[in-house]
Amino acid sequence: MIDMKKIMNAPENYVDDMLRGIYAANPMVKYAEDDLRCYCIAEKRPGKVAIITGGGTGHLPLFLGYVGENMIDGCGVGGVFQSPSAEQIVNVAKEVEAGAGVLFLYGNYTGDIMNFDMAAEILEMDDIQTASIVGADDVLSHADPSVRRGVAGIFFMYKCAGAKAADGGDLEEVLAAAQKAKDNTRTVGFALTPCIIPEIGHPNFELKDGEMAFGMGIHGEPGVWNGPIKTADELAKDSVEEILDDMEVKAGEEVCVLINGLGATSQEELYILSGSVRKELDDRGIKTYRTFVGEYATSMEMAGASISLCRIADEEMKKQIDKPVHTPFYTQV
Amino acid sequence: MIDMKKIMNAPENYVDDMLRGIYAANPMVKYAEDDLRCYCIAEKRPGKVAIITGGGTGHLPLFLGYVGENMIDGCGVGGVFQSPSAEQIVNVAKEVEAGAGVLFLYGNYTGDIMNFDMAAEILEMDDIQTASIVGADDVLSHADPSVRRGVAGIFFMYKCAGAKAADGGDLEEVLAAAQKAKDNTRTVGFALTPCIIPEIGHPNFELKDGEMAFGMGIHGEPGVWNGPIKTADELAKDSVEEILDDMEVKAGEEVCVLINGLGATSQEELYILSGSVRKELDDRGIKTYRTFVGEYATSMEMAGASISLCRIADEEMKKQIDKPVHTPFYTQV
Repeated sequence: MIDMKKIMNAPENYVDDMLRGIYAANPMVKYAEDDLRCYCIAEKRPGKVAIITGGGTGHLPLFLGYVGENMIDGCGVGGVFQSPSAEQIVNVAKEVEAGAGVLFLYGNYTGDIMNFDMAAEILEMDDIQTASIVGADDVLSHADPSVRRGVAGIFFMYKCAGAKAADGGDLEEVLAAAQKAKDNTRTVGFALTPCIIPEIGHPNFELKDGEMAFGMGIHGEPGVWNGPIKTADELAKDSVEEILDDMEVKAGEEVCVLINGLGATSQEELYILSGSVRKELDDRGIKTYRTFVGEYATSMEMAGASISLCRIADEEMKKQIDKPVHTPFYTQV
Repeated sequence: MIDMKKIMNAPENYVDDMLRGIYAANPMVKYAEDDLRCYCIAEKRPGKVAIITGGGTGHLPLFLGYVGENMIDGCGVGGVFQSPSAEQIVNVAKEVEAGAGVLFLYGNYTGDIMNFDMAAEILEMDDIQTASIVGADDVLSHADPSVRRGVAGIFFMYKCAGAKAADGGDLEEVLAAAQKAKDNTRTVGFALTPCIIPEIGHPNFELKDGEMAFGMGIHGEPGVWNGPIKTADELAKDSVEEILDDMEVKAGEEVCVLINGLGATSQEELYILSGSVRKELDDRGIKTYRTFVGEYATSMEMAGASISLCRIADEEMKKQIDKPVHTPFYTQV
């Protein structure tokens, strides 16, 4: 049994204490309706499609960390690994909606789908137009793409949809930008340790000494195998093969690479892995357009990483991925 | 005993595999003299004072992560927790030196001091002017400020010296900017778990279940006490008191706050701690000018955090801290 070693106050205040810290540090964001969990950009842009996300706490910078300039506009914040309520999503939507409709862009999880769908119904009664799309990039979570989990690859959906909205796209165009990013993005992940939900106090699954889980989800959902820890080169090879088996990328085509740390894994290791992935791509003649390395979608203090490839579909997608963004958690120039 | 769970290839290749990954992902940096560990900005700016740092691997983004636009220009990269060689420092200096001299800005550790001093002697024989300053912000490491360890607070020295150099300051002025940041910065840190050096394979110290170490260094140097894990509020209170006992900050004065994760601690926890620190400062009437939260100086997968306060000495320091910077690891707009 691993004991819980976290810097926090009472476990039941984990989410709200975190939110208070974020608001105090970052004047760029505020909350709506006197509810800390209704997280909004402080200054909305009139006439722009508003993009709203939401999901459980415990994945920073996902989800709220992408609220900022040229990315997304609001986030319903759930408890640890729990969906926000439909009411919270509605409150965020009403606060950030700016006359051009709302895109809901979130991860493919049952609780979230239920609450975002309910929120969409409520907003439509108020004549606020909505569209919805879910991230579902985790290749190993299911053979059927429609029921796959959403993980770090949602970054490219935020990036492309956010750029299209900032450039004045209408709701249909912003949705199409998100869809194009989704269609071209796949992720494979692996965990080396579990994490601990503060109010539970013990790990949500077990991994033995020397053991890892390949294909595991960011909440500890089972993977495709558990076994001895592989090397960075082996993990890169296995992951790139899994992704390319699911999404064809031809020699000469370009991809963006996202090497994501799940929480406890050091940046040193992420760059070792990034180097291994580059070799795999180079060997296949696949060009790397841009590489992102860091923490993009975590599971608190879980050790492990994920590898996402986003196939560059066209020049517009490059511009969207390159567009500068600025949030309290992620800045790209 | 904690087992080693790292994403890597052979432990003896840890540093160079990491560096290959970094160079492949980031065209903004290159290496000199065919030595991966001579880490340099790709395009130097003629006439600018060059700022060079260096130190052991295992602290990313420290040290090399601050090489970039408007920050520093080069870094000698040592093995895990080891100093770079004098020769590597000389090679970096010769590569990035741009006609206005070189500032060595690094942490206050014996091995680093020896090698940087030797490098300075070699460069002076080649008529390259150097000046040196060490970060020594870790309040609890020693009562005598001159022998304190350098930890996350060196960020403010990089920021202020980097801004002064980018704005055309001469070597004396750039050194003075670093000195002013140093004089006004203090750090207190605490660890909840140890970390593991790849080539050793087991933790470099032990912490029991439920136990933490207050005042511990980023290589596992002993702290002032080990005991049961305190709450975020208690840690903030104790740390702010230690800092303010050592450096007076009056009510009405302004500080920047740096909440630094040591590696495995989640961003959720860092923001909880940040909120607790804000309360402590507010209670004393100390104004927070700007808050930085994230990983700035780590110890691989060590769990824990540090709190740095940088007292705003004058308006110029504010402008230096606010100056936009862009490196592969840290971007501020």
